[in-house]
Amino acid sequence: MNSLSIDHLMDWIESHKDEWINEFKTFLCFPSISSEPQYAPSVKECALWLTQTLSKLGFEVELWPTQGHPVVFASNLKAGKDKPTLLIYNHYDVQPVDPIDQWKTPPFEPTLSQEKIYARGAQDNKGQCFYVLQAIKLILDKLGKLPLNIKWCIEGEEEMGSSGLSSLLNEKKEALKADFLAIVDLGIPNSSTAAITLGTRGILTLDVSLKASSYDLHSGSHGGIALNPIHALVKILSSLRDDSGKITVPGFYDKVLPLTPEERKQLFFDFDPQEYIKQTGALPIGGEVDYPVLERAWLRPTLEINGIWGGYINEGFKTVIPSTAHAKISCRLVKDQDPEEIGQQLAHALKVAAPLGCEVTVTVHPGKGKAIRVSHESTVVKAFSQAFSEVFHEPCQFIYEGASIPIVPELAEACQGETILLGLGLNTDQIHAPNEHFSIDRLIKGILIMVKAFEKLGG
Amino acid sequence: MNSLSIDHLMDWIESHKDEWINEFKTFLCFPSISSEPQYAPSVKECALWLTQTLSKLGFEVELWPTQGHPVVFASNLKAGKDKPTLLIYNHYDVQPVDPIDQWKTPPFEPTLSQEKIYARGAQDNKGQCFYVLQAIKLILDKLGKLPLNIKWCIEGEEEMGSSGLSSLLNEKKEALKADFLAIVDLGIPNSSTAAITLGTRGILTLDVSLKASSYDLHSGSHGGIALNPIHALVKILSSLRDDSGKITVPGFYDKVLPLTPEERKQLFFDFDPQEYIKQTGALPIGGEVDYPVLERAWLRPTLEINGIWGGYINEGFKTVIPSTAHAKISCRLVKDQDPEEIGQQLAHALKVAAPLGCEVTVTVHPGKGKAIRVSHESTVVKAFSQAFSEVFHEPCQFIYEGASIPIVPELAEACQGETILLGLGLNTDQIHAPNEHFSIDRLIKGILIMVKAFEKLGG
Repeated sequence: MNSLSIDHLMDWIESHKDEWINEFKTFLCFPSISSEPQYAPSVKECALWLTQTLSKLGFEVELWPTQGHPVVFASNLKAGKDKPTLLIYNHYDVQPVDPIDQWKTPPFEPTLSQEKIYARGAQDNKGQCFYVLQAIKLILDKLGKLPLNIKWCIEGEEEMGSSGLSSLLNEKKEALKADFLAIVDLGIPNSSTAAITLGTRGILTLDVSLKASSYDLHSGSHGGIALNPIHALVKILSSLRDDSGKITVPGFYDKVLPLTPEERKQLFFDFDPQEYIKQTGALPIGGEVDYPVLERAWLRPTLEINGIWGGYINEGFKTVIPSTAHAKISCRLVKDQDPEEIGQQLAHALKVAAPLGCEVTVTVHPGKGKAIRVSHESTVVKAFSQAFSEVFHEPCQFIYEGASIPIVPELAEACQGETILLGLGLNTDQIHAPNEHFSIDRLIKGILIMVKAFEKLGG
Repeated sequence: MNSLSIDHLMDWIESHKDEWINEFKTFLCFPSISSEPQYAPSVKECALWLTQTLSKLGFEVELWPTQGHPVVFASNLKAGKDKPTLLIYNHYDVQPVDPIDQWKTPPFEPTLSQEKIYARGAQDNKGQCFYVLQAIKLILDKLGKLPLNIKWCIEGEEEMGSSGLSSLLNEKKEALKADFLAIVDLGIPNSSTAAITLGTRGILTLDVSLKASSYDLHSGSHGGIALNPIHALVKILSSLRDDSGKITVPGFYDKVLPLTPEERKQLFFDFDPQEYIKQTGALPIGGEVDYPVLERAWLRPTLEINGIWGGYINEGFKTVIPSTAHAKISCRLVKDQDPEEIGQQLAHALKVAAPLGCEVTVTVHPGKGKAIRVSHESTVVKAFSQAFSEVFHEPCQFIYEGASIPIVPELAEACQGETILLGLGLNTDQIHAPNEHFSIDRLIKGILIMVKAFEKLGG
């Protein structure tokens, strides 16, 4: 099979630009928010659109039903048995959009501005799914067939913990089997640095609720008598981390190993605090202050309060001692930490810390997942790192990702192939936040990298 | 003027029962929530209904406009110059109704069940306003004229801090002048105990907001790097009280004097913890544990978090490090504590406690007010305590109220008369909470007490 030069590829990309930008916008219009039940029909419509689009490209497409949202599973095995098979993973579901009033353009009306596309999912993960799609389209358009066999698993529940796909893994083991697994849901440290990810953190999320009275009480008549569950909650929550940012939950660090000198050497460490402050408005002083910033972000576990609420929270004032108070907590986990075990430890710590008179309810969410780490010396990592180098015109670095894709370790086990974690996201893409966006430049780089890597893996 | 016996009064009350219950329901139907701007038209309608109702009873009624909701000011001075003048204070505005899903019947569809009326405002303060109205109606019906001159000030902003009435006090000083001032917005310790209130606590409310980044950040990519404002907030808030419930804000207790033995002797102290737990579901262990419960509730200052919010607070989960986190805080103040000063101390303490990287904004709400204490030996307290004794068939006790009516000290100054604080509320009426209610029994007692006290004051 002929190799396509970067110049040839760019010609196709530029000459088809209007067409693929419009197709991308169509993909982004579906409000496929998996975690909010009222959006279920839109999630389904988005899956059907993918099915039709991939069918038109000659893929055999199956829609795997789950208890929640369906998995789109597509395969094109026409390269033949002497060619390797690559399983690609993406997801078509997106995060909720609140706070909606902070969006400059409506989240499901994709808007192109200064060579960036703004929409919920523009990067995470529709953007990253979309450049894979265009790479395939390009190759088929130019060469008529793919240089390797491709299986593509695009799930609809990543943002709510992937329980549907997880429950199918055993049953679909044969379908998911491949030589290589590419998780295309990661990022690069900045827009000019080629990088591949060698691991993601695991995750555990839970809700905690405190109840201290049968109903809301007047803070004048009952203030000084009744226990206020908000006071209990802030006390409990503030006890979960010490002044150095160390998590105080007993047993939490038991299985966390320090980095070896070899691991530390591999790491691309280039963190510019001024640049971080400029981009996010946040001082990089969260977490365990005794560790370097990127180690904290990539290879140390965390405990973050992701939501808190109780009492009167609207305009004006209400002098109430509420009956209940609530928080949402997540932990990012590293290699060897077991989400089940950490969940139990944290639930226990929350209950033990609660004062007399507070009823504590802890609900661990199903979307748990372990951390994953992969070798930098595998065939698939080598092929993609060469592709990254060619497209970025510089050597490819190795990084880790602080976020979690809970399904990855399980999917890697089902696939049994060499795993690679990659993507072109930036920390500044405002994923999971208002005004999420992705740049046209990176969409193009994504297409190029995919074509080049497919060629290399296909020999 | 003839004295009306309790039996005579009861005949009138019983024979007119359907009529006055219907009139009460009409009053309760207005959703006169002063603090929520969308209810402004209903607040106005409620004021107009009062105007019409009092005009029909022969009162001269003025509607005093304010920047917010109007004050209804009614007077009937037909008793003549040789009779004293009593200024009565009530309010026709009510608290918000959330959490609305916890109401068993709609808050503005008054429902009579087991001799109780359920509605927002059923007690606070429409119920207490209404028995005054019926007492006047009864006297006029039976005797044709009142035994003393009555001025009646019914404001529409008590639940949001009375700023409108407060701003009018200087201008309306002459109109408000009276020999006695009765604040009819208080309670009794239980349904069988006659009691008059010798003081209320002052109040100060504020909002505090923390901002730690320009936008919400992904807790995977930024967890361990970015400062989480919820963590900062829970730490700051939990530092405001120590383990004994003592408030740690520097200067907070500087002007708080211990009770004198004489003050302690006057107090009716009868607190049953089991009964409290049964009624509220709350353990009476909030506040400063080193003080007796009722002293904590009546004569000690408090600091309560009345609301807290930040991050993702809906169903499901969102792995976000929010940009901001917020809380609403109130303090109940005692004699000699100045709300302005305490507000500054608290704002300063919040700012000092915030970590580097958190922008703190403190907004003190306008509805501040000092505490008030009155003598138990005044003419007006003696007249009302006799009326209470006659209606309850037992001696009248003296209590304090932990809640605040910020306008009272200012109104007392404008009126220049002897002040009394009274009412028939119970801690279990669920004021400021779902399913607020008031009993028919206490409505009737209220009518009787008012008639009896008017007679005594009128000589």
